[in-house]
Amino acid sequence: MRPSGRALDQLRTISIETGVSLHAEGSCLIKMGNTHVLCTASIEDKPPSFLRNTGMGWVTAEYGMLPRSTHTRSRREAAAGKQSGRTQEIQRLIGRSLRAVVDRQALGERQITVDCDVIQADGGTRCAAITGGWVALRLAMNRLMQKGIVTGDPLLDHVAAISCGIYAGQPLLDLDYDEDSAAGTDGNFVITGKGKLVEIQASAEGAPFSTDELLTLMSLGMKGTELLVAAQKQAVSA
Amino acid sequence: MRPSGRALDQLRTISIETGVSLHAEGSCLIKMGNTHVLCTASIEDKPPSFLRNTGMGWVTAEYGMLPRSTHTRSRREAAAGKQSGRTQEIQRLIGRSLRAVVDRQALGERQITVDCDVIQADGGTRCAAITGGWVALRLAMNRLMQKGIVTGDPLLDHVAAISCGIYAGQPLLDLDYDEDSAAGTDGNFVITGKGKLVEIQASAEGAPFSTDELLTLMSLGMKGTELLVAAQKQAVSA
Amino acid sequence: MRPSGRALDQLRTISIETGVSLHAEGSCLIKMGNTHVLCTASIEDKPPSFLRNTGMGWVTAEYGMLPRSTHTRSRREAAAGKQSGRTQEIQRLIGRSLRAVVDRQALGERQITVDCDVIQADGGTRCAAITGGWVALRLAMNRLMQKGIVTGDPLLDHVAAISCGIYAGQPLLDLDYDEDSAAGTDGNFVITGKGKLVEIQASAEGAPFSTDELLTLMSLGMKGTELLVAAQKQAVSA
Amino acid sequence: MRPSGRALDQLRTISIETGVSLHAEGSCLIKMGNTHVLCTASIEDKPPSFLRNTGMGWVTAEYGMLPRSTHTRSRREAAAGKQSGRTQEIQRLIGRSLRAVVDRQALGERQITVDCDVIQADGGTRCAAITGGWVALRLAMNRLMQKGIVTGDPLLDHVAAISCGIYAGQPLLDLDYDEDSAAGTDGNFVITGKGKLVEIQASAEGAPFSTDELLTLMSLGMKGTELLVAAQKQAVSA
Amino acid sequence: MRPSGRALDQLRTISIETGVSLHAEGSCLIKMGNTHVLCTASIEDKPPSFLRNTGMGWVTAEYGMLPRSTHTRSRREAAAGKQSGRTQEIQRLIGRSLRAVVDRQALGERQITVDCDVIQADGGTRCAAITGGWVALRLAMNRLMQKGIVTGDPLLDHVAAISCGIYAGQPLLDLDYDEDSAAGTDGNFVITGKGKLVEIQASAEGAPFSTDELLTLMSLGMKGTELLVAAQKQAVSA
Amino acid sequence: MRPSGRALDQLRTISIETGVSLHAEGSCLIKMGNTHVLCTASIEDKPPSFLRNTGMGWVTAEYGMLPRSTHTRSRREAAAGKQSGRTQEIQRLIGRSLRAVVDRQALGERQITVDCDVIQADGGTRCAAITGGWVALRLAMNRLMQKGIVTGDPLLDHVAAISCGIYAGQPLLDLDYDEDSAAGTDGNFVITGKGKLVEIQASAEGAPFSTDELLTLMSLGMKGTELLVAAQKQAVSA
Repeated sequence: MRPSGRALDQLRTISIETGVSLHAEGSCLIKMGNTHVLCTASIEDKPPSFLRNTGMGWVTAEYGMLPRSTHTRSRREAAAGKQSGRTQEIQRLIGRSLRAVVDRQALGERQITVDCDVIQADGGTRCAAITGGWVALRLAMNRLMQKGIVTGDPLLDHVAAISCGIYAGQPLLDLDYDEDSAAGTDGNFVITGKGKLVEIQASAEGAPFSTDELLTLMSLGMKGTELLVAAQKQAVSA
Repeated sequence: MRPSGRALDQLRTISIETGVSLHAEGSCLIKMGNTHVLCTASIEDKPPSFLRNTGMGWVTAEYGMLPRSTHTRSRREAAAGKQSGRTQEIQRLIGRSLRAVVDRQALGERQITVDCDVIQADGGTRCAAITGGWVALRLAMNRLMQKGIVTGDPLLDHVAAISCGIYAGQPLLDLDYDEDSAAGTDGNFVITGKGKLVEIQASAEGAPFSTDELLTLMSLGMKGTELLVAAQKQAVSA
Repeated sequence: MRPSGRALDQLRTISIETGVSLHAEGSCLIKMGNTHVLCTASIEDKPPSFLRNTGMGWVTAEYGMLPRSTHTRSRREAAAGKQSGRTQEIQRLIGRSLRAVVDRQALGERQITVDCDVIQADGGTRCAAITGGWVALRLAMNRLMQKGIVTGDPLLDHVAAISCGIYAGQPLLDLDYDEDSAAGTDGNFVITGKGKLVEIQASAEGAPFSTDELLTLMSLGMKGTELLVAAQKQAVSA
Repeated sequence: MRPSGRALDQLRTISIETGVSLHAEGSCLIKMGNTHVLCTASIEDKPPSFLRNTGMGWVTAEYGMLPRSTHTRSRREAAAGKQSGRTQEIQRLIGRSLRAVVDRQALGERQITVDCDVIQADGGTRCAAITGGWVALRLAMNRLMQKGIVTGDPLLDHVAAISCGIYAGQPLLDLDYDEDSAAGTDGNFVITGKGKLVEIQASAEGAPFSTDELLTLMSLGMKGTELLVAAQKQAVSA
Repeated sequence: MRPSGRALDQLRTISIETGVSLHAEGSCLIKMGNTHVLCTASIEDKPPSFLRNTGMGWVTAEYGMLPRSTHTRSRREAAAGKQSGRTQEIQRLIGRSLRAVVDRQALGERQITVDCDVIQADGGTRCAAITGGWVALRLAMNRLMQKGIVTGDPLLDHVAAISCGIYAGQPLLDLDYDEDSAAGTDGNFVITGKGKLVEIQASAEGAPFSTDELLTLMSLGMKGTELLVAAQKQAVSA
Repeated sequence: MRPSGRALDQLRTISIETGVSLHAEGSCLIKMGNTHVLCTASIEDKPPSFLRNTGMGWVTAEYGMLPRSTHTRSRREAAAGKQSGRTQEIQRLIGRSLRAVVDRQALGERQITVDCDVIQADGGTRCAAITGGWVALRLAMNRLMQKGIVTGDPLLDHVAAISCGIYAGQPLLDLDYDEDSAAGTDGNFVITGKGKLVEIQASAEGAPFSTDELLTLMSLGMKGTELLVAAQKQAVSA
């Protein structure tokens, strides 16, 4: 029995509300149980300087946590004067994951910045940010297409992410904070709508793990992202 | 006729939803029209170092804007590596305003940090932060009292804030972004539940203004904060 | 009886010495009693980037305190690696106050930076900086006009500033450090030569204050800035 | 045929020279072909503050690249004023990997910092840093045991790391810079002496990859780290 | 004929006004022609942490230039967020020079910080800072002795500094800015009241120089510092 | 007898290995006894912005110490977020010293950055950096000439540097760390191949020193740099 009372392969309740931002070209509030992440996509009409005159665009991401999104208050990074290593690692992962399904030629010389701000945290914030970030990006791409600014669709596929871990010898899907703190091995799986891998990261928090354990986690991850992709589809068609 | 179509002395629709944060000791989401600010109050069991062994506590505030809370995306302050002068000015104002109604002796040697994060901006964010910050603080104080950690009530009165300005020669209450951008004179009024002044700031954006104009703005501000105090009362009694 | 022994509405001894800097296009050393601020105005022949090709100029201000201008030594901000919130708040106020009397069209595409450096502090440094900063700016504008670089006078009026506060129930003009530390309410009034308001800021340090008290402070402020404007006139005509 | 001319599953020439630092408690210069990393382990007799009075120690890592270790000169991070996100990500990975084989209870309340400085870069620097960092750590642990400062061996197993990737449809072991730049999928495998996984990270640089491709890379990684562990054994017994 | 019209071995007019700061334990305004430096000495009753429980004290220095002390306005270091390499080099030199004549045992466990702020610059600011810094330090030491806080005199001798250079083949004493800009070789000589060397720094700005040239500069430096020491004596006895 | 057992005027064993970097246009590893510095010269095809359209080039230097190059581990400057004053002072000295023998007109509009990274420190690192930095620069200049990018030789002479000091009343050449720590006076002499002075810096660490003592140190320095120049010649002709 897992701490949350869920079945081993059961996701938390998913909710993806779109259009939550008055200003952003694409936005959603994604909730994975008590983890709530606000995702916005902002379009700029020029690419980063390293892509000038290449005909190609860029998608990047930034990540932040509100100071009291966490159990005890975390120091505000703007006040600390720098982003932590963890923050930078996560926002690099989100950016890579989204770019993996973007046709940067079709996007043309513009940049889309996906901001993922954690309003409330209960484990799995980076995965929720990728899943919700894709929705914001999809909506921004729709707007570019509706306005005729881009012709083909620059977004090639869905991408979604989920964490899996081994807790008390059992493989669990979609760990919340308590489960994550107690898990021996912890992995994040970023997977496309077609079921291909974009990025996997798995770490032994305690004892090292075997290839078989990794495979078990990976198939859980496949199952989880299938459900997330279904939720994305429903959200963007609403 | 003002740009928003409201009457000269009409507030935007106010909504204050409490208990929006799973983790914070007090929280609310305040909406003044399209301006949305998430306010959380976090209690720490020790005071800042300059108050150690004085028997007194402290209330402080931090302020931030999500990058796409604004019309065009603003640079994330954590990525820029520092808080802007505007951010620091605002968070100092929020802190002073809240401390003006706190009995720091009754609070005892602890610190409450009120975080005000702008989810969506349409003018008047600092005023909404003060009004909503008070609600979060009130709820955190309630918790301290319910747990018997403090005996008397450390919160002496309400405090709320509203902006007023002169637009096309007319005094307006509660300016939204478009009105604020066009106003010649702009003031923020921080006023207690008993109608006393805690802080006023008024600036000539264009031509300097007269004492009479200031008095007109101030009486509008009095009217506005009365309504806000009523909304606070309703929110915390809910 | 106020701590300084002055009458309630009595300014400290004012002295404004002009031309104190070999290099600056305009300069003065202003002394308000023991508060001494060196003000210099530096002209640059190009505007800040946001004004390029607009035909308009800019006036900005920076503020600093020498480490031992204060009772006990303050940390040097250059060594600390950042300007404090207080410093930024003050220099933004000085800039706004001076710009309120500048015709930026008449100035044309150039920038004047007014540096206000506190050599010795005894309360009221931001007000002395505004009053002295105006003198430095006036002298720099004179030079632009004498050289025929600008044709009309870009400086429309005087601007001066003074602090007022309530101490032991009495309204006082021009608080020194000891008076300021003990005052219950404290305000800064930035007023033009024609007696119009440019900026007012008033804060309750202790108990909130009434509209009547604010009006009393404001009329003291009017009186004080009249005397300061007279001192400015004498200084720039010398 | 791979660009380097090596067989698909062939490592570059490995060289691990120990005792290269006069001052460090453990050190080696590891060369994987043209990638050269200097690794030193420094022992401090007190743990980081979060471990005080817990009886447990800590192993941490820092990573840096000399400015001209790269093809074109990179900006010195000390001059830039901060470590890049990539640097922080890598040094966090090195630290986690080493800690996975450390018995922190047996180490006791002390800290070992493993510095990995890239003298020359030709791909795979983070893997070389982990493999060489383990050697420096092993030698520092030996010194603690020889001096009787710790009694049991705090180092439970070997740990080594290698990169693998898919280039032109072929899985390659130990990519050099040219191969890495051209690879479609790229993974790093951190594996213990007993063949258990400590950390895996795999990313699609181009098209997403399949589970089968990941398994192929992982078995190459297993083969590579076996050889690296053999090289570690030889180095520390020399 | 040198640009300034002075004789080759002639100092600029020296003026040292003491007691210029209301707050500092020792202070002076030193003028070497148009170079004006405000020097203050601030006593703290505890030493820096590396001297705790050693019975010894410390003297340190900080240096700054007001933004418009220079011909064209320099960026404020507090706004830039760091002290330049030049600033750090100079303040380290001032600190070393002053410590060379301090008996840190006699000073006891306290720290004196000498702040040297350039009000107006016309060459030779670091030398004026050392010469004036000594005067501020002497006055602060006097106060410690008068109050009986230290018993013996912790200041063992005078120390003063002067620049010399080779201009158009001629050795010059005390270069002003125009002379310094044109000089081929430039040196700073820090010399005690007894005529011993504390620090010399000489650089070829253009062609390298000979030992003989250095000796000529050094004897000019000796002559100059003798005069400066006489001026220090007069200033502190006034 | 000096601590190292060397004769008073005896250098440590010198070794200069060239071509140690795969990527740099010029490089060497210089060893002065246990002090090891890796020097690389990197050519950029455009000058710094202040030299654009002047026809002249620039040579600059950067300096760093690996964290465990020292007896006890030093904090990594990239992690600290800034270069220390000492680092900046040293890299400015290296840059000035090398530029003193460069014909910047002959170099043309390009920049060469000489990076000096201390792999292992045992005193005299800045001198070794200058001596080795010249070798790296010489090799980079050779490459520019061989490729016909520059026509005349932009490097006019050798430059080398050595430290000297007074220890127990005896003048010593080339101090190692233990000798340097105990020396009363300490100087660095930067001297050309023709025996002319480029820069001298001498400081009293304890008692001030006399002109005669300085002259003794200077003649030791002359002797030492002659030997270093011979070693440079051998290294670049190999």
